[in-house]
Amino acid sequence: MNILLTVSYDGTNYCGWQRQVNGPTIQANIEKALELTYNREITIQGASRTDAGVHAKGQRAAFALEPGDLKIPVEKIACVLNTLLPQDIRIIRSEEISAEFHPVYSAIKKTYEYKIYNAPIADPISRLYCEHIRPPMDMDKMLKASKYFIGEHDFKAFCASGGSAKTSVRIIYSISLKKHEDIISMQVTGNGFLYNMVRIIAGTLINISLNKIETDAIPEIIKSLDRTKAGKTAPAKGLTLLEIYY
Amino acid sequence: MNILLTVSYDGTNYCGWQRQVNGPTIQANIEKALELTYNREITIQGASRTDAGVHAKGQRAAFALEPGDLKIPVEKIACVLNTLLPQDIRIIRSEEISAEFHPVYSAIKKTYEYKIYNAPIADPISRLYCEHIRPPMDMDKMLKASKYFIGEHDFKAFCASGGSAKTSVRIIYSISLKKHEDIISMQVTGNGFLYNMVRIIAGTLINISLNKIETDAIPEIIKSLDRTKAGKTAPAKGLTLLEIYY
Repeated sequence: MNILLTVSYDGTNYCGWQRQVNGPTIQANIEKALELTYNREITIQGASRTDAGVHAKGQRAAFALEPGDLKIPVEKIACVLNTLLPQDIRIIRSEEISAEFHPVYSAIKKTYEYKIYNAPIADPISRLYCEHIRPPMDMDKMLKASKYFIGEHDFKAFCASGGSAKTSVRIIYSISLKKHEDIISMQVTGNGFLYNMVRIIAGTLINISLNKIETDAIPEIIKSLDRTKAGKTAPAKGLTLLEIYY
Repeated sequence: MNILLTVSYDGTNYCGWQRQVNGPTIQANIEKALELTYNREITIQGASRTDAGVHAKGQRAAFALEPGDLKIPVEKIACVLNTLLPQDIRIIRSEEISAEFHPVYSAIKKTYEYKIYNAPIADPISRLYCEHIRPPMDMDKMLKASKYFIGEHDFKAFCASGGSAKTSVRIIYSISLKKHEDIISMQVTGNGFLYNMVRIIAGTLINISLNKIETDAIPEIIKSLDRTKAGKTAPAKGLTLLEIYY
């Protein structure tokens, strides 16, 4: 029987999603909770390998149960795991999936959120969940520039080295920008994202809002396929994986 | 010359505002930063002694500079202190005040916010800034009950033991309730608050929203002057001191 977990976490204290020897990860914590529950090693397949410091509200992870495993009603697996997990990782839902379902390859689109705290002095409460930008940002410029990303493009200029994707062509369906008090939130939905792509888009829009890059420069930057033409990579802590659609 | 600081902090890692020997406090950190800046011990007078785990966006604190002290432009004192403070404490503003100004006695009203995350499973991102309530809360009942608090009353039933106030009569000017996604926020403004008063009001409204206390019971509870008749004291982490008005 195959199980899909929906996972929410505060990435602040983790070296990212993927299990590694150098420090604590989300994957390792969930696998440890599964081992304590089922008395055997279970490997989970995450939908997205979020980086160190990146947060999630709707990460997904799948694993397979075997006939001999402890019988826990599928929807209760979340509760059982939550009793074994640290408070900064919560399993929001556990459900049965078909044998054909794959958390990575079955995904049709994903939504990420990037948050910026825009005020002269940083905010202690949001310091771990927002990038802090001191000078006033021009939202109109960001909004105008964001439209250029929509559609199918080769996003090589918005991809950090180290990615393993075969092609850098992706479709962005929407980018929405909202401001609530001093927090600017960008939500971007696409059929998939290259390594650091959302953070480079965020960094580029931030540069545009601060008049460091021209509002109309996006089509040229995309066309260049040259990472050095795009803006900085905005810091990990501002990024949250909101939702994966299947 | 007298200086007033506006202070914002994440109270998670502190034993509250007031300096004490048992652990780190906001006051002690700011006084240490002042000592490093002015090369002498300086005591600050906070407007509100927030408890361990309570947050602030608009705490105030005053101190006096002496003629021999280093000359820093008043509005720059905030920046200088921020370079010496941990990131979970920020000085938002520094300004000159008259000799007659007192951060406690000159205050005419204060606004606190209490936040609740209302969903079956806790949210890692807001876990340090909201109380988590699992069952669905009835906002209409909370809203109706909140009206009974408005006005001048003896709030002895909503005061924890250990307070030092001479009278338990206070005026509540307004209580507003808002819901955004799964977070319910209560903002209460009054001329002053007794020890734990906002947290007991929040706990009582939570109990009402969960049908544990009758919506119409508030006038009787107030009249009883009996702490045991009101609801539980909601946890510190949900509370933020938003603003002090002078």
